[in-house]
Amino acid sequence: MKANIKITLKNGVLDPQGKAISHALEALGFSGVDSVRQGKLIEIELAESDADRARQSLDDMCRRLLANTVIENYEIEILG
Amino acid sequence: MKANIKITLKNGVLDPQGKAISHALEALGFSGVDSVRQGKLIEIELAESDADRARQSLDDMCRRLLANTVIENYEIEILG
Repeated sequence: MKANIKITLKNGVLDPQGKAISHALEALGFSGVDSVRQGKLIEIELAESDADRARQSLDDMCRRLLANTVIENYEIEILG
Repeated sequence: MKANIKITLKNGVLDPQGKAISHALEALGFSGVDSVRQGKLIEIELAESDADRARQSLDDMCRRLLANTVIENYEIEILG
């Protein structure tokens, strides 16, 4: 079972990496960039074949290791 | 116009960050993790309201700044 996990900064948390990208785009001549936020994308392949159990296990992984839930949100997408 | 850009390592490119996550998950007692690859997720907001022109501009941004096309793939998703 394949899954993608998107980890993004919560609203209100400063994102210096996103700001740097935004300024670099401007310096390259791209105008009209209102905001940029950078997050992480984790592609994971599990031996588990049951979608519910896989989601449960991924949720556990996010809370225990992958995401810092104080400042980050995570979203699990099961690709099957 | 909002868009997400997923930047992932090409197949065959070593991913030490992914390997580290995989080992950490194992150490925490999660079994059945076959593979982990880490990529980047960039959430961008453009002033442009035409989807085609936005995609064109984002494609340009990816090739010139956001992705290293020698080792990375990128995928643009227009959220509207």
